[in-house]
Amino acid sequence: MSYSLPEFLAHAVALEHEAAERYLELADMMEAHRNDAVAAIFRDMNRFSKMHHDEVKARAGALELPRLKSWEYRWSAPPEQGGEEAFDYMLEPYNALRYARENEMRAREYYRSVAAEASDPEVKRLAAEFAAEEAEHVAALEQWIAQTPRPAMAWDADPDPLQPAP
Amino acid sequence: MSYSLPEFLAHAVALEHEAAERYLELADMMEAHRNDAVAAIFRDMNRFSKMHHDEVKARAGALELPRLKSWEYRWSAPPEQGGEEAFDYMLEPYNALRYARENEMRAREYYRSVAAEASDPEVKRLAAEFAAEEAEHVAALEQWIAQTPRPAMAWDADPDPLQPAP
Repeated sequence: MSYSLPEFLAHAVALEHEAAERYLELADMMEAHRNDAVAAIFRDMNRFSKMHHDEVKARAGALELPRLKSWEYRWSAPPEQGGEEAFDYMLEPYNALRYARENEMRAREYYRSVAAEASDPEVKRLAAEFAAEEAEHVAALEQWIAQTPRPAMAWDADPDPLQPAP
Repeated sequence: MSYSLPEFLAHAVALEHEAAERYLELADMMEAHRNDAVAAIFRDMNRFSKMHHDEVKARAGALELPRLKSWEYRWSAPPEQGGEEAFDYMLEPYNALRYARENEMRAREYYRSVAAEASDPEVKRLAAEFAAEEAEHVAALEQWIAQTPRPAMAWDADPDPLQPAP
């Protein structure tokens, strides 16, 4: 995974664009369910991703970036993958925040691994910088998660939907 | 999961659009690797998805369709999720075909479950019809898979990459 600069920038552009789109979805969803506090968090995250996207585009300048396959940059699906179930699941602010954190962690690990393996010094420098930004997002989401009531259904296991979470 | 007609049509439009896009990616990838036979299959699948998409749009007519969240209709990621690994993995026509089949099966199951649970008779009828179309795609992909050499690395398990598949 030792990228050229255009390859790396293409990944960063796609990743930030994808993140911005997903934060907008999450914000709209929270707003529709009258959770303005969590909607505001996701709108902030959307803005950060967009700004980062624009910075990376500016850095790319006239460089021609390769086209990527969708699975090279997409956010993971919510843990209850699929149609309606995922939707219901995601309506809980706690789950939506954890979902966002998962994806920010994936992005952070991605940038870290690029930084570790890059032979191009500019790729190394940029990837380390982007990893640090993602780490800040993870930390911010963790703070919010700590302040958000946990729903009855737990994240990792749901042995019996009628039982409250331990 | 008992949809109104506009809700159901929104899912079908999004699902077919997503499938068309992914088939185009797969076709381009196969073509770049000089596998014209498999590229042609994916171009056919792309065309079928597009046609189906357009039919559903025509059926929707002036109905206003709700906006969906991305995870309500997206193709799954390849099994070796992530960046470069998924890409390498998908370069094998056998894996790409199995990946496509997985997603067609998901679509078929989705339409079947809607047909089973729908209370609106028109939703029930359309969902059953769409499920039958997806079943044809699954069958076509299965035929191609049977004719495609299996790569050394197996789909479900890769206990040791140096060992050939059993």
